[in-house]
Amino acid sequence: MAVELKDLTKVEDNYSKWYNDLVVKAGLAENSAVRGCMVIKPYGYAIWEKMQRVLDDMFKQTGHENAYFPLFIPKSFFSREAHHVEGFAKECAVVTHYRLKNDPDGKGIVVDPAAKLEEELIVRPTSETIIWNTYKNWITSYRDLPILCNQWANVVRWEMRTRLFLRTAEFLWQEGHTAHATREEAIAEAEKMIHVYQRFAEDWMGVPVIVGHKSPNERFAGAEDTLTIEALMQDGKALQSGTSHFLGQNFAKAFDVTYTTKEGGQEYVWATSWGVSTRLMGALIMAHSDNNGLVLPPKLAPIQVAMVPIYKGAEQLALMTEKMEAIAAELRARGISVKVDARDNVRSGFKFAEYELKGVPVRLALGPRDLENGTIELARRDTLSKETVSLEGLADRIAALLDEIQANIFRKALDYRTSMITRVDTWDEFVDVLENKGGFISAHWDGTVETEVAIKEATKATIRCIPIDAEEEEGKCIFTGKPSHRRVLFARSY
Amino acid sequence: MAVELKDLTKVEDNYSKWYNDLVVKAGLAENSAVRGCMVIKPYGYAIWEKMQRVLDDMFKQTGHENAYFPLFIPKSFFSREAHHVEGFAKECAVVTHYRLKNDPDGKGIVVDPAAKLEEELIVRPTSETIIWNTYKNWITSYRDLPILCNQWANVVRWEMRTRLFLRTAEFLWQEGHTAHATREEAIAEAEKMIHVYQRFAEDWMGVPVIVGHKSPNERFAGAEDTLTIEALMQDGKALQSGTSHFLGQNFAKAFDVTYTTKEGGQEYVWATSWGVSTRLMGALIMAHSDNNGLVLPPKLAPIQVAMVPIYKGAEQLALMTEKMEAIAAELRARGISVKVDARDNVRSGFKFAEYELKGVPVRLALGPRDLENGTIELARRDTLSKETVSLEGLADRIAALLDEIQANIFRKALDYRTSMITRVDTWDEFVDVLENKGGFISAHWDGTVETEVAIKEATKATIRCIPIDAEEEEGKCIFTGKPSHRRVLFARSY
Repeated sequence: MAVELKDLTKVEDNYSKWYNDLVVKAGLAENSAVRGCMVIKPYGYAIWEKMQRVLDDMFKQTGHENAYFPLFIPKSFFSREAHHVEGFAKECAVVTHYRLKNDPDGKGIVVDPAAKLEEELIVRPTSETIIWNTYKNWITSYRDLPILCNQWANVVRWEMRTRLFLRTAEFLWQEGHTAHATREEAIAEAEKMIHVYQRFAEDWMGVPVIVGHKSPNERFAGAEDTLTIEALMQDGKALQSGTSHFLGQNFAKAFDVTYTTKEGGQEYVWATSWGVSTRLMGALIMAHSDNNGLVLPPKLAPIQVAMVPIYKGAEQLALMTEKMEAIAAELRARGISVKVDARDNVRSGFKFAEYELKGVPVRLALGPRDLENGTIELARRDTLSKETVSLEGLADRIAALLDEIQANIFRKALDYRTSMITRVDTWDEFVDVLENKGGFISAHWDGTVETEVAIKEATKATIRCIPIDAEEEEGKCIFTGKPSHRRVLFARSY
Repeated sequence: MAVELKDLTKVEDNYSKWYNDLVVKAGLAENSAVRGCMVIKPYGYAIWEKMQRVLDDMFKQTGHENAYFPLFIPKSFFSREAHHVEGFAKECAVVTHYRLKNDPDGKGIVVDPAAKLEEELIVRPTSETIIWNTYKNWITSYRDLPILCNQWANVVRWEMRTRLFLRTAEFLWQEGHTAHATREEAIAEAEKMIHVYQRFAEDWMGVPVIVGHKSPNERFAGAEDTLTIEALMQDGKALQSGTSHFLGQNFAKAFDVTYTTKEGGQEYVWATSWGVSTRLMGALIMAHSDNNGLVLPPKLAPIQVAMVPIYKGAEQLALMTEKMEAIAAELRARGISVKVDARDNVRSGFKFAEYELKGVPVRLALGPRDLENGTIELARRDTLSKETVSLEGLADRIAALLDEIQANIFRKALDYRTSMITRVDTWDEFVDVLENKGGFISAHWDGTVETEVAIKEATKATIRCIPIDAEEEEGKCIFTGKPSHRRVLFARSY
């Protein structure tokens, strides 16, 4: 599993290849023998676990409980909600048989034709249908509401063009599914959860996001409204990073889920669903990293501080390692995760490059002269700056530095994002900015699906969202010149 | 989601129905619309999450990292290891197509025959094959070893007769997969992990287990040795609760995984795998529960203390609730999980029964007279005993009581298990104990598969294990009279 730095493609040469190289070489993930399915390697999974833990705590703090629903969904369930089936039941993994047998011709094993399922099962691409079929049995009265469930699970969507973390046939995610007595409560829930996602993206991942509504054309299949958080990658393309849907009564009607109101009437139940996935890993990687490798925000870094001894001979190595372990113990006592790298079969320079590649926020190097002077070399991954500092007060300094790095990473991403939102008022400007600058374009749109589709066909740019804080402003659609009442954000996207 | 206690079947009337009733009525799990697949409900999932957290910490403390491998396995992978294919590739979910389309006859959606996979994909029943195919790329030199990976995942085995938690088509589990340079190191790993499982079962679940080797006939398909932990349920049947396999070089040979030794030679890599699943939930439930419902060990109980106000009228309810919240805050500060149940639409007696059904270890009830006297009513779930105690020093008392309940639950199960291990030396005794007492039977066996199979066919009892601490003892096989050198443990099992 040796790291080969020299082969990392440069950002400016080929962004897409740089990303893929980085994911593989930093030990985050790799392609598997199964088309479109990835292996998430230990270092990548350690970051995902941290994300999961934080999000799970946030879900519980907002009153949600975890549960688990089946991997398989009967085919007929998809036909019940007309929009949903169009969006999800088409490109999917279909289980048709439940047994293999020895090939009568002696060539390994074959599907047993006698073991054909009466009804095919779909490997879940999302779980609204199976969950609402379950909720039907859980909900009788207003007293049973709200139901606030979340599920951590794998899902499968048969994507034709896949990219590690960003778009894979199988991916890991969480999906919240809530049931409410009123429209207002469901809308409030969908809004609450998109803001949970925003807080997670900004405070933990260091990725600023714009919260907004999807245009009808980009809505979740079966939703009445889809809220989204949109992030901007360093190549100027947007990445949809999380969505929260107000589903109205669509699934309640499809699965006949009603409740008795306080007054004794019967009403259909109101629903939301919301999810983030391992796609967030892609956002995290692309938002901050550089030609030296990953840049991880300290709050999500599996290793926050790497310590490398500088030495000649076994005796010096033992001495440096001992001193470093003492410093590490002090840091760990503050909850900082530290790795002391005492390997004697690779050079210090190799270790430096490896921790840069892996995005470890702080690197400490201790040599014999440091020991004499009571100092240590401290390097920051985010700025790549180095300084020699006193051993005295080191733990305080590092604790503060981790906070500073976290803040700096976010600020840098925010400054970039701010510089990459361009207001345009003409079609020529629109095309020019798209081609020569990228980023978000704030422009007027006439509100029709036809115009949105036409713009997409002409430029590959889509409406990323109608920001929730979009101000009323009279203008003219950049494409049709028809009247518009607010600007929306366009971008090319992942 | 109201609880209906009156319908809980009695243990002595129908153990199997009691179990199923309990799982459903306590809100742990239920059957889904998909044959053999269960829905794990929030209360059940909360217990599973606690189990996961503890086990995951134990795995990390023993040097393991988490990773994630694909849900799907190409069919041909199974044919590579001859025993493995017999054991696992037969009853499984087979994905044959990747697209649905609108029925040309307008009847919903149908499988698109044009979207047939070239090679069928199997939904993983266990992941040795896909993982060893991956390890091939990770391992070159002895420096790459050991690899100590674990995966939390869902797996599917097409079981014909299913029971909630005990045997379901889809279940949740963890599977550890390790790669080692030497036979000795791999054997030591397999032994280490079965003892991790033992410690978890005994110290956390309060379930005593016997550690032993499986007989060749009961080994994991593809293993050279299978270690098991065997628990005893209250109906006298055994439950295999976790296994750890020494896989030899079988998978390394099947997937051509070799490494360069320090000396420059090429060797096949040695392997282990080990797993526990949501089946542990079944063990937990059946080991301790009674006619009133679940009995949960405090260390795994989602709610450790339930508090119920006794009151007349809204004013008293408010008063009791306020006082209880103050007590709850004190308990929570010690890390005890507490639920204050201030519902005013159900009676106290209903709440009492509900917390008994849900196995909450300690219940506190506070009424106006208690408030006058500075007392509170304290009830233990494990013994069903009640006493009135002083409010003074209550937090200390409860912290100590939770430990005592944890110890008591284990002791009770251990006493029962001890009383249910019967040494027999004749076939008549063997049959008599099986029919009239149950439990483990310690008896001599001639060591052959034929005898084991014959005994199973005659009695439905199997060799649960050859205990690792089995003493050398000369004797005669209870079935054939042939010589035997140690006793093994037989039982009927789940």
